[in-house]
Parts: sequence; C-alpha cells; structure tokens
Amino acid sequence: MAKTIMVALGGNAIKAADDKGTAEEQLANVYKTSRELVKLIKAGYKLVVTHGNGPQVGNLLIQQEEGKSMVPDMPLDVVGAMTQGQLGYMFEQALENILAEEDLHIPVVAIVNQDVVSADDPGFKDPTKPIGPFFTKAEAEALATEKPDWVIKQVKPESIEKRFRRVVASPIPIDNTEIDVIRKLIDSGCIVIASGGGGIPVVRDEHGLHGTAAVIDKDLAGAKLAELIKADIFLILTDVDHAKLNYGKPNEMNVGEIRVDEMKRLAEGGDFLKGSMGPKVNACIKFVENGGNRAIITSLDRACEAITEGYGTQIVG
Amino acid sequence: MAKTIMVALGGNAIKAADDKGTAEEQLANVYKTSRELVKLIKAGYKLVVTHGNGPQVGNLLIQQEEGKSMVPDMPLDVVGAMTQGQLGYMFEQALENILAEEDLHIPVVAIVNQDVVSADDPGFKDPTKPIGPFFTKAEAEALATEKPDWVIKQVKPESIEKRFRRVVASPIPIDNTEIDVIRKLIDSGCIVIASGGGGIPVVRDEHGLHGTAAVIDKDLAGAKLAELIKADIFLILTDVDHAKLNYGKPNEMNVGEIRVDEMKRLAEGGDFLKGSMGPKVNACIKFVENGGNRAIITSLDRACEAITEGYGTQIVG
Repeated sequence: MAKTIMVALGGNAIKAADDKGTAEEQLANVYKTSRELVKLIKAGYKLVVTHGNGPQVGNLLIQQEEGKSMVPDMPLDVVGAMTQGQLGYMFEQALENILAEEDLHIPVVAIVNQDVVSADDPGFKDPTKPIGPFFTKAEAEALATEKPDWVIKQVKPESIEKRFRRVVASPIPIDNTEIDVIRKLIDSGCIVIASGGGGIPVVRDEHGLHGTAAVIDKDLAGAKLAELIKADIFLILTDVDHAKLNYGKPNEMNVGEIRVDEMKRLAEGGDFLKGSMGPKVNACIKFVENGGNRAIITSLDRACEAITEGYGTQIVG
Repeated sequence: MAKTIMVALGGNAIKAADDKGTAEEQLANVYKTSRELVKLIKAGYKLVVTHGNGPQVGNLLIQQEEGKSMVPDMPLDVVGAMTQGQLGYMFEQALENILAEEDLHIPVVAIVNQDVVSADDPGFKDPTKPIGPFFTKAEAEALATEKPDWVIKQVKPESIEKRFRRVVASPIPIDNTEIDVIRKLIDSGCIVIASGGGGIPVVRDEHGLHGTAAVIDKDLAGAKLAELIKADIFLILTDVDHAKLNYGKPNEMNVGEIRVDEMKRLAEGGDFLKGSMGPKVNACIKFVENGGNRAIITSLDRACEAITEGYGTQIVG
C-alpha cells in the first residue's frame, strides 16, 4: 500500500520574502510548491498537505480595521476559516492543473478544518502571539473599550508611535474535528489539503465546539494530524535544507539523521531558534514520540531527495 | 439505500433582513437553519448543502476597498473562496454540534469547491451583476485606470453621488471540478457542504482551470451539482413557502405540485419575478429537465413537511 506523507509547508511556499502579497504572487508560489508536491505523488506517495496563513490573516485584519466603520469585523476563528478558503483554493487548483498536465487522475480537495485546543491551555492566560495592525497609544486605549476581550500589548519601543498590537494565545492542538472525513478521503485515494493555518481554533465544551481567539502553530497542528492519520512520514518543508546546530556561527553544522531522544536533548539545550526552527523541531519530536516513524525537515526544492535519498534532517524513533 | 437531497439555502439561512452582518448573527442564523437540516437527516436522508454568499462577498469587497492603500486586494474568485471558508466553517460547526446533541455520528465537511463556466458565456460580454461598494463619478474614473479589467456602470440616478458600481458576469455553471470527491464523500456517508456561493468561478482552457471575475447563481450551481450527484430531490429553501402566481396581486396563488413542462410554460410567460423567484424556478426546471425526479421550492421551516408530506412547490418530471 502507498505510504502517506503529511506535508507541512512553510511560509515561503506561499509568499516570497519580497512579495507584496498579491493574488498573482501567491498563486505563482503555490504553483511552484505544488510542482514539488507532485514529484512526491509521482514517486508513489499519498499526500495530506497543510500550510501557514500568517500573512493572509494579517492582511484580512488590516482590511477589517480599515473598513470597520462600514462592515462588522469577523472574529479570529472566522478569519482563519477565510484563509483556508483562500489558500485551499489556490493549492486545490494548482495541484489539479499540474496533475492534469501529467495525466494523473487523482482527486484533490481542500477542506474547511477545525483544530481543537484546550480552554485551559496556558497560552490563554498569557497571550503572546502578536497579530494584525499596529496601533498608537490612543487607538490602543480606544480598543480596550471597543473590544474588551482583546489583549493589547506594547510590542515596540516608546519612540515608535504605532507600538501596540493585539496578542492572542498560541495553544497546543489536541484534536482535529474532521479527522473521520480526512481518513475517508485518504483511503479513497484523494490528496487532501487540511488544517490550513494550523486549523480553525475551537474549544470543545458541554455545548460542543466553539471558535476561540487563537493562532495555532501550523507545524504542531500538522504533527497532530500526521499522528491521527498514522502518516508514515511527517515532512516539514521550509526555506533551509537542514535544521542546524550553532546556526549562523563558524561551527554551524547540519543535523542529518538523528534519533528523537538525541534531537530532544539538543532542542532542550536551546540549540534551535525560538519562533523559527525551534517549533519545527518540536513538532517533529512530538510526531515521533507519539508513534511516528520518521519526521523530516528540509527545503521545498529538496523534498523529493529527502523522501527518496534520506536528505535533510531526519528524526527517527 | 438512503435518498440524497441537494439543498440550496437562500440568503435568509445566513442573514435576516435587519441583521448588521456580525459573525454572531450569522452563526445564530446558521444554527437555526442547521436545526431544520438535521430534521431531514433524522428523516433518513443524505444531504449535500449549498448556500449563497452575496452579503459576505459585498462586505469583503468594501473592506478591500477601504484597506487598498495598505493591502493588495484579492480578485473575485479568491474572495468567493474566502466566503466558502467563512460560511462552510459555520455550517460545519453548527451541523457537527447539533448532530452530536442528537447523538448522531455522521461526519460533516465543507469543501473548497470550484464551478466551471464557459469563457464564451454571453454574461462575460455584457456583465450585469452589481457587486461591492458604490463609487462617485471621480472614483469610477480613477478605477477605470487602476482596474482596467473592471466594468463599472452607473446603477443609480444622477442625483445620487455614489451612483457607480462594478458589474460582473453571472455565467451558467457547466461543471463542478471536485465532483469525484463529493461523490466519494456522499457514498461514505458524509454530509457535504459544497459549491458555496455558487462555487468559485473558474474557466477551463488548454492550460487547465483559472479563476474568473464572475458570480454564479447559487441555485443554478446547486441544480448542476444535484444533477451531477444524481440527487433524488433538489430542494430550494427560501423565505416564502411556495412559488406564487400573480405574486402580490389579489388573485395570488400558490403553485403546488406541477409538471416541469407546465412550470416552464409559466416561467416563460414571465409569471415569476426576475432576480427573486425566477432564478429559483429556472434552477428547478433545469434539474428536472436534466433527469432529476423532483425539485422543491419552500421555506426553511417547512423543509421537512415538503419532503415527507409534499408541501410547497413541487416540480416533477
């Protein structure tokens, strides 16, 4: 039976560093990314794909702020859902077109997908993830009344006028609500785009599921989904070809194949950058610790080599 | 085997006439709607659900216009995709929660879904569907340079300052690109939310699928999907309980069960309002003419009666 790869795409899969964020740029990047993904399909693998949504959420929040005198703004869970539609559409269409070019008849679908977090997650007590537009002190004070549930923090020095920003929780994903559907789709031979942007953040209580103001790390959400679908490989594609020890120093060194306990020791020693490689390494460790065989970190253009030749950082059980 | 109903929800399923359009209002309406849909599921039917997105697209276009100095605006196909995420999420969550309350274990999923239209559709030659914000004459003239592919028309009298508006095509849907996936999902027992807002409008050429600036009528897209999945019933739920002859006149009369050829005769005679009941009647006629057994028009709260007791306007082959 074909092995399943759960692929988590980094921000560079959708937006290049100097892009303005137009739809044309995004779609061009998504096409480039999808061509690499189709190589994995041609190598005989089933794929489930997830992606980030940071710049897209940021842009929607700016547009909402600019239009707020005319149009009610949507909460963060709904904004996340909107970006799943936006980016899910681009990946769906790009993959469908490339597969058709290659005469491969494999259905593709992007689903609207919720990830469950705990209402008790410590992240909700002290939110730290900045999102959306920057505000002046006066704007921040007005928002304290206008949006009593928002947490606004100073994120830039006093010398900068627009130095305040909303911060939200970045809780740990503990479940994926459409997991049964995702399993059915994989089993029936579909390529699935799921858990976009880390999934729409929801909590589960006695009344069911409810959206919550949070941003879930897309690599952690991908690791959880990889675990739930029992993926053979969890593959994180980013803009560097390896996780590196002593990053940026003269003794910088690629991490190649490594046992999860050793990788965990390095991660706990602070060897990987917070907010950059650190979360990716942690997501890989989680996947392998929860029963996964192999988690890989490499760059988009080395994805195929990573799978077929063991290239990149390969964390094994 | 359980019969399949393709349900097309009218605008009132998401937005009440005097709603401001907040997420809370939308979600409350979606819950109310979903409770009616779950009655159909409890009566033993499989469901595929589609919905409109007019107010949501309108709001996004206003936000894009207001924020355009800071954030690149997305084209209409991408905006449509965003509303599929937004509303698909609300229906997915509401249906999941209500089914869980009822102890019914039926997977629900909203998919990102493209509907194909012909590049030669006459709608593209003379676009008539107004969308997004209103503009002054000066703004309209600036947009003629800024957005050379937009068609802007005067839609209000000279006396009104903001009297210009963008108009787009409303082409006929001819295919649904994720139809294989939708069939698989129905066969495996899932409730599917698909073709939201009439589907993301795409054309197909020698290079594959490409988004296009259009708004597809959601009832026509629903009728096409009903045909493609061979639905047993195509059910349009709106704010009136019947299609009516002589609407608003002293001799107003409900249309009950009627043969499609007779309904077509009435429709061609102009008996139903353009832009209101007319398109719904036409969608029902299309479904039955293309091999469907039964198409129904009724109000949301009479859906169950319509299915189990023959209530409402029932168009048969």
